[in-house]
Amino acid sequence: MEYNKIMLDSKDNLENFFNPRSIGIVGATEKEGKVGSVVVKNILNLGYNGEVFLVNPNYKELFGKKCYSGLEEIEEKIDLAIIIVPAKFVNDIVKNASEKVKNFIIISAGFSEIGEEGKKREMELADLAKKNGLNILGPNCLGFINPKIKLNASFAGGMPEAGNVAFMSQSGALAVAFMDAAEKEGIKFSNLVSMGNKAQIDEADLMEYFSKDKNTKVIAVYIEGIKDGRQFIKIARKTSLKKPVIILKAGKTEKSKEAISSHTGALAGSNEIISAVFNKTGILETDNLENFSDLIKLVSETKTIANNQAIIITNAGGPGVLTADAFKHKKIKLADISQETKNKLKDFLPEESSLENPIDLLGDAHEDRYKKALESIDQEKAGMVIGVLTPQDQTPCEKIAREIINFNSKTNKTTVAVFMGGEKIAEALSLLRENNIPNFSFPEKAVRALDKYYKWSARDIYDLEQEEASIEIRKERQKKTLEIIQKATMENRSALLFSEAGKIMDLYEISVAETITVDIDVKSKNEEKENPDSRLRGNDIKNGNDMEIKFPVAVKIDSDKILHKTDQQGVILNIKNQKELSAALEKMKNNFPGENIIIQPMLKIQAELIIGIKKDKVFGPVIICGLGGIYAEIFKTVEFFIPPLSLDEIKKRLLNGKLGFLFKKTRGKNPYNINETAEILMKLASLAREIENIKEIDINPLLVYNNEKEAKAVDIKIVIN
Amino acid sequence: MEYNKIMLDSKDNLENFFNPRSIGIVGATEKEGKVGSVVVKNILNLGYNGEVFLVNPNYKELFGKKCYSGLEEIEEKIDLAIIIVPAKFVNDIVKNASEKVKNFIIISAGFSEIGEEGKKREMELADLAKKNGLNILGPNCLGFINPKIKLNASFAGGMPEAGNVAFMSQSGALAVAFMDAAEKEGIKFSNLVSMGNKAQIDEADLMEYFSKDKNTKVIAVYIEGIKDGRQFIKIARKTSLKKPVIILKAGKTEKSKEAISSHTGALAGSNEIISAVFNKTGILETDNLENFSDLIKLVSETKTIANNQAIIITNAGGPGVLTADAFKHKKIKLADISQETKNKLKDFLPEESSLENPIDLLGDAHEDRYKKALESIDQEKAGMVIGVLTPQDQTPCEKIAREIINFNSKTNKTTVAVFMGGEKIAEALSLLRENNIPNFSFPEKAVRALDKYYKWSARDIYDLEQEEASIEIRKERQKKTLEIIQKATMENRSALLFSEAGKIMDLYEISVAETITVDIDVKSKNEEKENPDSRLRGNDIKNGNDMEIKFPVAVKIDSDKILHKTDQQGVILNIKNQKELSAALEKMKNNFPGENIIIQPMLKIQAELIIGIKKDKVFGPVIICGLGGIYAEIFKTVEFFIPPLSLDEIKKRLLNGKLGFLFKKTRGKNPYNINETAEILMKLASLAREIENIKEIDINPLLVYNNEKEAKAVDIKIVIN
Repeated sequence: MEYNKIMLDSKDNLENFFNPRSIGIVGATEKEGKVGSVVVKNILNLGYNGEVFLVNPNYKELFGKKCYSGLEEIEEKIDLAIIIVPAKFVNDIVKNASEKVKNFIIISAGFSEIGEEGKKREMELADLAKKNGLNILGPNCLGFINPKIKLNASFAGGMPEAGNVAFMSQSGALAVAFMDAAEKEGIKFSNLVSMGNKAQIDEADLMEYFSKDKNTKVIAVYIEGIKDGRQFIKIARKTSLKKPVIILKAGKTEKSKEAISSHTGALAGSNEIISAVFNKTGILETDNLENFSDLIKLVSETKTIANNQAIIITNAGGPGVLTADAFKHKKIKLADISQETKNKLKDFLPEESSLENPIDLLGDAHEDRYKKALESIDQEKAGMVIGVLTPQDQTPCEKIAREIINFNSKTNKTTVAVFMGGEKIAEALSLLRENNIPNFSFPEKAVRALDKYYKWSARDIYDLEQEEASIEIRKERQKKTLEIIQKATMENRSALLFSEAGKIMDLYEISVAETITVDIDVKSKNEEKENPDSRLRGNDIKNGNDMEIKFPVAVKIDSDKILHKTDQQGVILNIKNQKELSAALEKMKNNFPGENIIIQPMLKIQAELIIGIKKDKVFGPVIICGLGGIYAEIFKTVEFFIPPLSLDEIKKRLLNGKLGFLFKKTRGKNPYNINETAEILMKLASLAREIENIKEIDINPLLVYNNEKEAKAVDIKIVIN
Repeated sequence: MEYNKIMLDSKDNLENFFNPRSIGIVGATEKEGKVGSVVVKNILNLGYNGEVFLVNPNYKELFGKKCYSGLEEIEEKIDLAIIIVPAKFVNDIVKNASEKVKNFIIISAGFSEIGEEGKKREMELADLAKKNGLNILGPNCLGFINPKIKLNASFAGGMPEAGNVAFMSQSGALAVAFMDAAEKEGIKFSNLVSMGNKAQIDEADLMEYFSKDKNTKVIAVYIEGIKDGRQFIKIARKTSLKKPVIILKAGKTEKSKEAISSHTGALAGSNEIISAVFNKTGILETDNLENFSDLIKLVSETKTIANNQAIIITNAGGPGVLTADAFKHKKIKLADISQETKNKLKDFLPEESSLENPIDLLGDAHEDRYKKALESIDQEKAGMVIGVLTPQDQTPCEKIAREIINFNSKTNKTTVAVFMGGEKIAEALSLLRENNIPNFSFPEKAVRALDKYYKWSARDIYDLEQEEASIEIRKERQKKTLEIIQKATMENRSALLFSEAGKIMDLYEISVAETITVDIDVKSKNEEKENPDSRLRGNDIKNGNDMEIKFPVAVKIDSDKILHKTDQQGVILNIKNQKELSAALEKMKNNFPGENIIIQPMLKIQAELIIGIKKDKVFGPVIICGLGGIYAEIFKTVEFFIPPLSLDEIKKRLLNGKLGFLFKKTRGKNPYNINETAEILMKLASLAREIENIKEIDINPLLVYNNEKEAKAVDIKIVIN
């Protein structure tokens, strides 16, 4: 905790880090092609106004400036030091300068990405930062570029235009390519940061900083892994409340996971969980580089979207239809045009025009039709306008672009262009770009980006920190649960027995199907064949009373060693009478000697859920709820719930998620009880919070009903750390 | 039949149509901005070598050439006439010239797209074509451009480079925009055809023509509707066997369907069915304009893909990972690199390079590393190579482009580039374009296009025409079935009774659950209350014998008026004894007076299918097979089978489709009997073929088992025309 405190204190000062009045460059050189030379030139020649001090013990002078042998030698204040020396010298340089300098960019490679030795070096570096209250970017990074003060503190070339996009990237190469491509897209930056190995400063710190930076409107993040899951959730949620955060997370396939671990050593979290985290925190996740780029462009340039209704205006039927097609499966919709507006349109449009949405101005439309059409629809409620254009015979593309620009300057609607073509529209595209109207070369790109941005506009982010803090940890059940787990740990078991799991469910008030535990008397094993039932003593797991058996029942093996018992024939279902039961018990005992056996009634099945807890390496425990039944693995209808959670959040996500159909009335079927299911999931969340050493809980099935019947956990597997 | 014969005869001669030695332009004018003027200039000024005759009764001379008053007046042979006059004059002009000229482009609008009057005019035009053996493109089209002979017979400006893409579009505007954008993508055309209203020449005719055209490697089609479904299937299948056909079908959303019908009046077929048609015929369907364009570029420029394995070579880790990510859910896969090749790579690559796929040459890679890496992997079996590049400090982009070009000239592998950036890579992109290496600005674009092209390379198209012709129509069952349907038609019923449907199932040997039809004696209605069972006479629908009732049973209403009987409480399930049965029958009779009632046993449910026939307006009867059960409508796990069908095709599609999991052994569960299900579907296909006036058949559920138990149709609904 102390550790975190110091780190946050220092990282709070990133203002100074990104806007230094003086810079020291350690490893400066004039040698052509060396990184040290590129960095110096970038800082000296691209317009930066602050003081620059060059450090290299081998020179007295470089680039006509005095050269120092060390940072300590410089008498003036140094706001930022950039280190470009072989890895083995880095930590000493930082250590020696740590009184004088608080902000460092470590460009040098040779840290955790090269293996054990490098990892050790990187940990040392992080420790230095902690002890001395330093801010360290990198190692193994490009540096950053702050175009507003014309500071290129990196070894990437060029100075992009100053704008409102804060771009941070775990891949330096991607940042460079993005910056190069950004120009033609009209994307402009408040900052470009290459994060490298993230020894200290990570995506969460940068998000926090840029959330407060007045020059930044949108935060764009390319990451391969997340360093601190819980910190990320906390900061991402706060940041998303203020500004859109757009993320591209690499490492989706098994193959590419391998590539990552050899690339930066980052731990790639499971994709579904990380997507649930982004969703919970209001982060806009994009699934590939193109959508990432499109969305950044859109958000950077346009107004916030007021509602989910869009109007298309086009000079071509086919492209209009294709734009409409792109709305399939989207949250944003084509608006219905009011009769009043249709009448206005009718006044000046040719008869063959379409007054329905997409509004088709026809192929011979000149700028006047666009102008009047835009003016006419401005009274509609729709929050978005998409201006589609194809360069037909004598289409005045630039003039039409000007009308869209003019409209955009006056309207509240989010306005985008879809001008399709090549040379014929090049001039018009320049105009649009100069006037911050995002153009998309294909309609589906525009619609996809608008749909995502609308999601942020309509965001609903729970602020649960206070709530979480106010939830009382219930010590008694926590203590009893820990005792059960301790017993298993002492017996070297990694999983609990059903009876133990059942007791925990009781403590957390999750209702379990009636269960009889069959006591196996190992000594009397020889008697088995003669009288298999003599050792059967039915015990209610709750109170240990003898119970009457109501057929039909199921017999199951209850062992920490047999985790997939259905696959291993550890389950016999539909036992109809005492004779079948005896035979089933006999079979189980022979197949799984020495293991416990349980008997459960065959309950009426209406809908089956699979619920549980999974501890994620990055984000900690995650609550899971999926559709069970025979096709569960085929359809993978699963929702992930990321703590901290409130009942309200669980209910909303259940209702709006993949399982939503269960909780709505459909085709005359009653909805299932969403309160009951949400409460059970909330109980699991409490369990996950109170008991840290639960690795996995799997309740499969949880039987739920759409009448008054109570939900019942049938099978329960608890795996411990 | 006669009609078809003549049409095909004439359209076979499209060679002459697209390569005319002489052209007459009716409606030629010098008036600036008029379509007639644009067309004349396009033909005269862009390099066309043939004879050109101008026709306009108002002039003696135009553009310094003699002007004729009519086509008939011209003494020389006219291979192609282009008509640009008001719609009302078009048909007369065509009629009067039809002895002299056989090929027409009708650019004039004012036909089916404007309503009833236009539709009549268009039908007349089609009749003229039929009677006189004419080829007519349009009306309401742009015309076509054949770059090889420098003929722009359209009112779109410009002359694209000659290449191998035959592009046909139902939207003229889209063709123009595509042509304009094509230049910067390096896409070159063998022909660009605007189809307009397709009064006569349609997508199938053009496909057939271009399938034989030696200048055409790939056929690209933008359509909003298909004119003749069965003809389309026939020709698409033949064409796909020879050349890739890439299609973009507009009109996916309800909204956009509206736009289409006001746009061209085309009938938009259901999306799922049309996708099944494309899939069956080997057509590569793309879901938006960008993917359409990407795939055209890829197929036009690269070699056929040998297998599903791909190798990525990159100078940047992050972009490498993103490229690998794009393979998620794709048929193409990242190849494993052999040890031998890894050893070769190790010889010259720095230690920190990744020798796994994606092969990372590191940020400081120059052209030599690319060259050697490409040479090293050429011995691998993988059919595809993706060269990824980001312009890092001193990356020699052009030189690396040259190495990729050089490699491509020697290898058998399909080679594509993913150079990412802007200005820094512009020169390299020009080089790649000039040398026909497709570059994709984002990795996911490359992977998506490769995956689709691989699908064509691995195509498996059934040629069933012979097979279909050889299948004997079984006249007797056809006759008996028609009699059953006739009876219903005479009684003004649009649906069959269960007993009738059951008889048809018997004729086609589809097994039905035992069913008792309860005879309602309308006269004895008053007796009902006292003795509800006295009128129950159990009849086996097959032979009319009295039957014993085995409980539990279900009672259902059997009426052509109640089609959604479950929703309307026309079904009572789980009736356990005679008393409950009496009550159920009583209730049904009261709720549905005068309607028939049936009794069926409650069969054991293991898996439920919904199978049937749906008559599509464009493609005729389609066979449907979907997963039934409580979540059928949620998961929509449905396959569409397009006749003509063979048992082999049905089996393969079932196994490889969404229902495939049922027919494979999974997690210890036996597979369901694919032969049985396929045979039942094949029987439905025969039924659809033999009986034309079936509009819809719905067997829901068909109960299937993964043991020896026979599949049973439980409920059967047959709707007739």
